Amino acid sequence: MPNVLSSNIPDIVIGRLPIYLRALTRLAQEGRDVTSSHELGQRLGISSAQIRKDLSHFGGFGKQGTGYQIAYLIEQLKQVLKVDQEWEVALVGVGDLGRAVAHYRGFAERGFRIVAAFDTDSSKVGKSIDGVAVQSTDTLDTFIREHKIKIAMIAVPAESAQAVADLLIEAGVRAILNYAPINLNVPDNVHVQYIDPVTHLQRMTYYL
Amino acid sequence: MPNVLSSNIPDIVIGRLPIYLRALTRLAQEGRDVTSSHELGQRLGISSAQIRKDLSHFGGFGKQGTGYQIAYLIEQLKQVLKVDQEWEVALVGVGDLGRAVAHYRGFAERGFRIVAAFDTDSSKVGKSIDGVAVQSTDTLDTFIREHKIKIAMIAVPAESAQAVADLLIEAGVRAILNYAPINLNVPDNVHVQYIDPVTHLQRMTYYL
Repeated sequence: MPNVLSSNIPDIVIGRLPIYLRALTRLAQEGRDVTSSHELGQRLGISSAQIRKDLSHFGGFGKQGTGYQIAYLIEQLKQVLKVDQEWEVALVGVGDLGRAVAHYRGFAERGFRIVAAFDTDSSKVGKSIDGVAVQSTDTLDTFIREHKIKIAMIAVPAESAQAVADLLIEAGVRAILNYAPINLNVPDNVHVQYIDPVTHLQRMTYYL
Repeated sequence: MPNVLSSNIPDIVIGRLPIYLRALTRLAQEGRDVTSSHELGQRLGISSAQIRKDLSHFGGFGKQGTGYQIAYLIEQLKQVLKVDQEWEVALVGVGDLGRAVAHYRGFAERGFRIVAAFDTDSSKVGKSIDGVAVQSTDTLDTFIREHKIKIAMIAVPAESAQAVADLLIEAGVRAILNYAPINLNVPDNVHVQYIDPVTHLQRMTYYL
């Protein structure tokens, strides 16, 4: 019952779980059955002690000396992260960036299916991107409510991003992946993650 | 002399500076001249005390009661992060993902110019993406050395990413933005940042 046990896991630990899941999935693809906190740590640049501690939050994963059963651990992590199901995702903004997001196959491959795309540009509405018809942003509220969509990706220009976020949240979205290079103000019950590759580059140039 | 003062800034603080820079740039675009740690904190969801502490590492930025001069702070932050210059960047992998990366205008707009693109697929070599000719990966080492390129973006499949990273590092690259969904093992003097939107989604589904 990991979802019961895991209700008080610190956010920083939750943030590492997808990384563990990714590394374990990769190990499974390489044909491996068993791994250790030591091996995972080496692959991820995280101490094995940290990994053992993180995974101990869920209870009973690792047995001292025998390592982790990869398939079992993958299954448990997916359950904890609630990615043992497919999630429907709405995409807002289908300019250059939004189209790139829509074309990225990694989302569907890992359980996130873009089921709707919205844009304010009437010349884009009605066109199809990777099988998803672009709708007018006017229909966003109705669509999100009817389909009970909880996850959205924002790929609109920075100046429109907050207004789009407000619309999405009003319609029931609770998790936003924001590609617009701006911080969003959202209520406490809404989660936001940011994808801004330039900020990642900028934190490395400091060291060059 | 921020670059002298800033030599011992904790990595976690460095990680927040690009976010401050982005928010300040946005304020400047809105026509603003002065801001406060309180306002920045509200925009970013960071406490004003944290912001004051972070910025105090550089000395003399804020004057109690008068707020921060936005243009001056932007200039100082750019200098600290070494983004007061243009950086040349190499891109490896021009499949769907790599092409999307190459087309993203935010890089050039914020000082990172893609000057070379590499792929192992001979059908792609010689073609041009946004004005950059795709070269064979065979020429990567020579090109990176000759142009003294320090920053690269990896957009190859996961199974090739480590080998590409090794090549890049051997040629002199010291900062890698990795879009492949795999952790890279690199020497201590090389910095890696990861862009994997699925891990960001997965850390939010936990809370849904």
